Amino acid sequence: MDHTTAKKLKAIVGVDNFTSAPEDLLAYSYDGSGLEYLPAGVVFPGTTSEIRRIMELASRILLPVIPRGAGTGMTGGSLAVHGGLILALSRLNRIIEIDQANQVAVVEPGVITGQFQAEARKLGLFYPPDPASLNFCTIGGNVANGAGGPSAVKYGVTRDYVLGLEVVLPDGGIIHTGVRTAKGVVGYDLTRLFIGSEGTLGIITKIILRLMTLPGAKRTFLVLTRSLAQAAKLVTEILRRGILPSTLEYMDKTALWVVARYFPEPLPAATGALLLIEVDGDEEEVDIEGKRLFALLQNRPEGGEVLEVRQAKEQGEITALWEARRAISPAAFQLKPHKISEDVVVPRSRIPDLVEFAEVLAEELDLPILTFGHAGDGNIHVNIMLDKENQAELQKGLAAKERLFARVLELSGTLSGEHGVGLTKAPFLGMELDGPSISIMRQIKKVFDPLNIMNPGKMFPEP
Amino acid sequence: MDHTTAKKLKAIVGVDNFTSAPEDLLAYSYDGSGLEYLPAGVVFPGTTSEIRRIMELASRILLPVIPRGAGTGMTGGSLAVHGGLILALSRLNRIIEIDQANQVAVVEPGVITGQFQAEARKLGLFYPPDPASLNFCTIGGNVANGAGGPSAVKYGVTRDYVLGLEVVLPDGGIIHTGVRTAKGVVGYDLTRLFIGSEGTLGIITKIILRLMTLPGAKRTFLVLTRSLAQAAKLVTEILRRGILPSTLEYMDKTALWVVARYFPEPLPAATGALLLIEVDGDEEEVDIEGKRLFALLQNRPEGGEVLEVRQAKEQGEITALWEARRAISPAAFQLKPHKISEDVVVPRSRIPDLVEFAEVLAEELDLPILTFGHAGDGNIHVNIMLDKENQAELQKGLAAKERLFARVLELSGTLSGEHGVGLTKAPFLGMELDGPSISIMRQIKKVFDPLNIMNPGKMFPEP
Repeated sequence: MDHTTAKKLKAIVGVDNFTSAPEDLLAYSYDGSGLEYLPAGVVFPGTTSEIRRIMELASRILLPVIPRGAGTGMTGGSLAVHGGLILALSRLNRIIEIDQANQVAVVEPGVITGQFQAEARKLGLFYPPDPASLNFCTIGGNVANGAGGPSAVKYGVTRDYVLGLEVVLPDGGIIHTGVRTAKGVVGYDLTRLFIGSEGTLGIITKIILRLMTLPGAKRTFLVLTRSLAQAAKLVTEILRRGILPSTLEYMDKTALWVVARYFPEPLPAATGALLLIEVDGDEEEVDIEGKRLFALLQNRPEGGEVLEVRQAKEQGEITALWEARRAISPAAFQLKPHKISEDVVVPRSRIPDLVEFAEVLAEELDLPILTFGHAGDGNIHVNIMLDKENQAELQKGLAAKERLFARVLELSGTLSGEHGVGLTKAPFLGMELDGPSISIMRQIKKVFDPLNIMNPGKMFPEP
Repeated sequence: MDHTTAKKLKAIVGVDNFTSAPEDLLAYSYDGSGLEYLPAGVVFPGTTSEIRRIMELASRILLPVIPRGAGTGMTGGSLAVHGGLILALSRLNRIIEIDQANQVAVVEPGVITGQFQAEARKLGLFYPPDPASLNFCTIGGNVANGAGGPSAVKYGVTRDYVLGLEVVLPDGGIIHTGVRTAKGVVGYDLTRLFIGSEGTLGIITKIILRLMTLPGAKRTFLVLTRSLAQAAKLVTEILRRGILPSTLEYMDKTALWVVARYFPEPLPAATGALLLIEVDGDEEEVDIEGKRLFALLQNRPEGGEVLEVRQAKEQGEITALWEARRAISPAAFQLKPHKISEDVVVPRSRIPDLVEFAEVLAEELDLPILTFGHAGDGNIHVNIMLDKENQAELQKGLAAKERLFARVLELSGTLSGEHGVGLTKAPFLGMELDGPSISIMRQIKKVFDPLNIMNPGKMFPEP
């Protein structure tokens, strides 16, 4: 970064809050996607007004600005693909207010999701969104990407908990969107336009969140089936009966293999899929719902397909199950050094079709593919494992990804349930969205960011 | 409407589906706001492609087009304030699909909300949004206005059930937004940009809706308190304890008076407020939740303030209670021939402050003001009753409205929870939204509708 710009940035945020030292730049050059792009500088503003001044400067000199939370994103959304300035939000990490009576909180974007949940819990309050990275990722990143998590089947996603935002626009203007009430329909819904906009429209500097009363109890169940198809049928049946679990996750055979060490004893050899099911609520209600669920799981005509149904009674067992679930993604590297990880979604009833397709694909290409994820809402994580240094494997993997996307769309699905488009899915945007929609989106981008300095190169395919 | 345009419109939709007869125009000149503007013509298209051709024509000749559902809106959103063509969506009234396994439906905008609920119910499915006009209003209108209803406290509003849309843009282009899956974060959230856009961005021609499993049981409770403040305290306490009612409505003293005839016996003279509370779910769960609620309502130290707690056991009593609740708005005309009806929202804990303000205002201006609505989410319907023919009363009423809005914003509230801005709140947009936000919204409007033919004169203040 040129000396003058660096000097100006230091004048705004203080000398300690800007860096262009190569070792620092390296630390901000990658994210969960496995891609790497070196930025020209990293700035750590401490206030909204510093961000305003940074954006005014960036507008004047056409400096790309890339907002960054914890860098846990899976699609390259926080990478400096065209160089420029990483705007790290780690210092905007205050929980400004938790209003107990109205069950509303105001936070800065750099607050760690899991830490916020813990603070809310102390007050008997509940913030449901729970991405797998919740102990590292930030609420600002969750909002920018429209993050989800296992609890979405019952509680919805981040989008469903954001009431309003403070945003610094690319030109330095500051807007306040939404409300701090349960309802609000005044003007266009700019709040939800920012949710999932992946840092391409402005920088979120405050977030007003809706909270709930913390459920008093939870029951955890483990179900093993011979086949994924059988597990998927169970999922549909559970929801049809009006049981609404707070978790309805599945892991396929390969996923189970990579996290086998987390299980206290080996799973039966015939296990084709595992369902992790939780119900939460008031103690008495959960007892009843748990019993209904248990009865439904045990008394089935096709009983032979269900190998085991167990309620996890001890906290140690529950913790181990969740550790297994959250470890799938990193543990998959046992299979191959790299992966193409996609978070596609299909209608629940089409999960077996998708997984069957993935199995055929894996066999055809001779690459391990594992699938796991949110069976309750059809959001399936498909990991295509490969060695990128091996050109043949890389090409096969990329071809597999495109075929996967095509199949997902055939099944009335979508290319992303919670990771977003970022860099890695941008070339495929046109597979899902029609031309006029993309054109409208590009024009909306221009309304907010006419100079294209706000996280350029993301979401839209580049020529 | 000039002869040539009328002829072209008839060529598109057929002679029977266009009218400019004065008696017909009259029928499409008003809505729930009580305002009247005569359109130049009314067209009744039967397909998306007819709407596309109408919009292409309208773009060529700069004809204002005003989409209209059932005309039950409260803010003049479907009125031809600048003349032009009413595009009535009554013929696009098919439920295209209800996918039971995935709990998803696809409907046309002209489907009556209550009829859709009934069809879903037949399949054991539940579409929660329940505006008071649900037996007349259309889902398209609900989506365009971001409608709510009593069930919002538990289930959220229309916005929370719309997965995707088909929209004809002002230039005749057709776009498909969103998904038909539980999750989806590909591209900007155009779906929610259209929700609450009040027909100013395009014409919604298909709606993909999320459904739930129909709860098997419900319990209805009636609570009478001496004061509204006491009722509001109960509401906070109920939610804090983790009881999440599917209805948490209140009526103030004046509202109770206007619907007195719906109650089988007179209410105690000391009644200051009524709470209508329902819990729903599975039979056993509802029993437990009902008992917890009943216990909480009965065993309170400040017991003297609660006059009566009753569980409505017979369907007749429940029906009467709901008839009373839904009749408040029309029955208010007993007090005065006209009203200014606002659906403001404040944080739950500020309801008593708002109602106290309304009472002081009523006394000061010597006009009846009644308040009722959704205590669970702070969305309060404030009806200022007056005689518009009486100029002094009208001026007092308008002044009261502006003072009400100012007070609501002081209390961290919003000017509209479910009715939208339309015509009647457009001049006040700047009270709630900051300048840069309004500027962004105007530019977004221009992206979709550069010729300003799409429901012009709505939402934004006009010079």
